[in-house]
Amino acid sequence: MPPKDFPRPSVREYAGTRADAARWVRDVLRSQILEGAFGGLAAARPALPSESELAAELGVSRNAIREALELLRGEGLITRIQGSGTFVTGAKLRQHLDRLEGLAESLAGHQLPVDNEVLSVRESTATPFVAAKLELPENAPIVFIERLRSVGGLPLSLDTTSLRMGAIPVDAELGKQDVFALIERELGVRLGWAEITVESVAADSRTAELLKIRTGAPLLLLHRLTHLEDGTPFDLETVRYRGDRCSLVTTAARGDAPTP
Amino acid sequence: MPPKDFPRPSVREYAGTRADAARWVRDVLRSQILEGAFGGLAAARPALPSESELAAELGVSRNAIREALELLRGEGLITRIQGSGTFVTGAKLRQHLDRLEGLAESLAGHQLPVDNEVLSVRESTATPFVAAKLELPENAPIVFIERLRSVGGLPLSLDTTSLRMGAIPVDAELGKQDVFALIERELGVRLGWAEITVESVAADSRTAELLKIRTGAPLLLLHRLTHLEDGTPFDLETVRYRGDRCSLVTTAARGDAPTP
Repeated sequence: MPPKDFPRPSVREYAGTRADAARWVRDVLRSQILEGAFGGLAAARPALPSESELAAELGVSRNAIREALELLRGEGLITRIQGSGTFVTGAKLRQHLDRLEGLAESLAGHQLPVDNEVLSVRESTATPFVAAKLELPENAPIVFIERLRSVGGLPLSLDTTSLRMGAIPVDAELGKQDVFALIERELGVRLGWAEITVESVAADSRTAELLKIRTGAPLLLLHRLTHLEDGTPFDLETVRYRGDRCSLVTTAARGDAPTP
Repeated sequence: MPPKDFPRPSVREYAGTRADAARWVRDVLRSQILEGAFGGLAAARPALPSESELAAELGVSRNAIREALELLRGEGLITRIQGSGTFVTGAKLRQHLDRLEGLAESLAGHQLPVDNEVLSVRESTATPFVAAKLELPENAPIVFIERLRSVGGLPLSLDTTSLRMGAIPVDAELGKQDVFALIERELGVRLGWAEITVESVAADSRTAELLKIRTGAPLLLLHRLTHLEDGTPFDLETVRYRGDRCSLVTTAARGDAPTP
């Protein structure tokens, strides 16, 4: 991807303190990193301009640039190598929150390999909470699945799923396929819509171990209740994405205004 | 709010290890806490049932319950007081991600006071990045605003906004009003839609200090580019929500399926 929106020389002078300038530079650079301005997931080794170039281009001191780069390094978005430069490590996978897609579907254009390590798949019974969500009697049989999902050889998310029975065969090959695609194929129906809640939480130690991050690292936590086209609630998921590997994108409308 | 979906006695036996059971119990309870099953933001002091009640109701050992409660405590969702019980501290404010609303608008039904501490408001010039987003010439004049937003007397988010000039008067009273409402009133036009990106990041030290959380605590980071009804990009925001105080809700559709 060619550089875009890259800051060219500017006469702007930042008006705040150095710490404020650093936070502002951090926000400018992180937006550019996430939009692939320095080369996206496909680039071999995307690099940032030098400190002095950045200082000239953004109209702030080199100290403010250095402080901003330190903040980005703390977030895991860049790596600094003495004598070599500053490299982008944290280009995040963008998942469309308003599209009901499985991971493999959403990455179909990326040519990045998706691997699902199946940690658990078994018949279970619906707890009162799961039963209420899936509109089943308590203790009704369900299928419970836990999978560790990796993209490009690195862990991306830890997903647990509670499904109505019959949605997928219990012996389904879950290592390579999306549950959504399996449901549609097995039942011969289309999925309809999902209710979604998104949170930011710190990783517990077991989740951190599985996702290969430190305990306490930020996770995007997504709860998703998916319904069939006829309105039947079918699939209750909890997805824990590594915060440093994933961003969620969507659009919002004012009142009844259409989104393009 | 009356308790709902509360787990009643069940014969379910969890099949995994104790650590797995604890993580599963944690997920069940956190969903219930966030949905207000034990009393929401309005309840005086919402409490969880005792360990032995929870163990019986969820069909797991008391040790697994204890471990799950410890995980929830680590997330800041509950407090445990020796001899008194387990109390919900972390009922989160739900913001609708698919509605383009200001904070005061979105909380209109809650009767919770919103306070905006204006940290910065000044005329500035568009950097190349901001200029590209707002479709302005480089160095075009803009208004830059930074606000610390509190709900119910506790910090909720740190918001920075870059606005096209003329969108709001520079001397506008920003302490009590949403920027969205000000724009619509000042310009006499309606907002149209916004492009949104959501991430989970660790708080830097200055942001943590302002939001009264520890450095490294999880934040929901939202980037939002808002357009007027006629398509003009007008308002580029970065919002850092405390992860322990806010969740974002939305719906997703499969293909062209309607969402209810």
